[in-house]
Amino acid sequence: MAESIYKGNIEDFNKKMQFLMIADQMKGIYRQTILMDKSRRETDAEHSWHIALMAMVLSDYAPKGTDINRVIKMVLVHDLVEIYAGDTFCYDYKASQDKEKREMEAANRLFSIIPDGEEYKKLWIEFDEKESPDAIFAAALDCLQPFMNNFITDGHTWRKGGVTLQKVQKRMAVIEKGLPAAWELVQKIIVDSVEKGYIKEGE
Amino acid sequence: MAESIYKGNIEDFNKKMQFLMIADQMKGIYRQTILMDKSRRETDAEHSWHIALMAMVLSDYAPKGTDINRVIKMVLVHDLVEIYAGDTFCYDYKASQDKEKREMEAANRLFSIIPDGEEYKKLWIEFDEKESPDAIFAAALDCLQPFMNNFITDGHTWRKGGVTLQKVQKRMAVIEKGLPAAWELVQKIIVDSVEKGYIKEGE
Repeated sequence: MAESIYKGNIEDFNKKMQFLMIADQMKGIYRQTILMDKSRRETDAEHSWHIALMAMVLSDYAPKGTDINRVIKMVLVHDLVEIYAGDTFCYDYKASQDKEKREMEAANRLFSIIPDGEEYKKLWIEFDEKESPDAIFAAALDCLQPFMNNFITDGHTWRKGGVTLQKVQKRMAVIEKGLPAAWELVQKIIVDSVEKGYIKEGE
Repeated sequence: MAESIYKGNIEDFNKKMQFLMIADQMKGIYRQTILMDKSRRETDAEHSWHIALMAMVLSDYAPKGTDINRVIKMVLVHDLVEIYAGDTFCYDYKASQDKEKREMEAANRLFSIIPDGEEYKKLWIEFDEKESPDAIFAAALDCLQPFMNNFITDGHTWRKGGVTLQKVQKRMAVIEKGLPAAWELVQKIIVDSVEKGYIKEGE
């Protein structure tokens, strides 16, 4: 019988397929960041793919001891809660206040669909806490990708939100720790972006 | 010095960042498949994310011996050549004729940007040949995702292309081998899709 060549059971398979169909909604969640060609805002699915590719390509630049395969899985699921909680713009401090509660409720709802959902929920919590080495590398990628898109699109998101130098510096700080090879590039871009008026000086 | 905590060098880092910025173009390559909410065609970046998530979530249903971490990497890069070669609709037999040549030229151009590009090129070739166990599982996911989106969107792509039962069956055959747990579901959906007029009977 065909069943003998894999270890899962059909009942769980159907639940997982249901979960994967819900995941299609990640293609309809639009972030603040726009594509480098400026044609539209990027989606959560696109962002997640991009940073998973970055984790893979930049693996030699992760702090030693980082488990790249775990990081890739972490970033593939890191924004799934937004299917129910929506995307919160990182520089929107008002919306960020109840983000934690909204996202935990979303996680409970979403990850209860599949039998091993607890495993995914833990991976998402670990990402969100930004404390473990894997989560710090993942967080650095999660910051660097929109940062690059912002710079290449003439500071689109920074200008739209009137984002200040100090806030960008604070937001990017995790890159120094999680992806130190990028730190010099990030600093150069920040200086350039202030000069060009993409980022406002001040707090 | 910061350099001591990772093994890569800065020159290669810059090349890899350049490659990763080019990869943003995957968000501008629109496939025939539309999103389940029918709002627009999905992009290569979204498709790649979706099947990477499927590889992760359906790992228990991969044939024993499949290396899931390798499959995830394979699907993350499997469509990158389309940045230079464009997307070829799988049921467009005319465009499929010179697909191989176009895509190999694209692969040579794209993967020569980064020092370890040969590794990515090999992963893509392995995917494209659909012979290794990892590639067969990846190919099954690559077929199943648009298949599900097609069914949920009332056979959008099949109807648009006037696709026949025999062509769908041929295209989906890899699922029986690479993801046998899905085979019964696929067959049910095909029967239902013929009944509903999404798929034309015939060769």
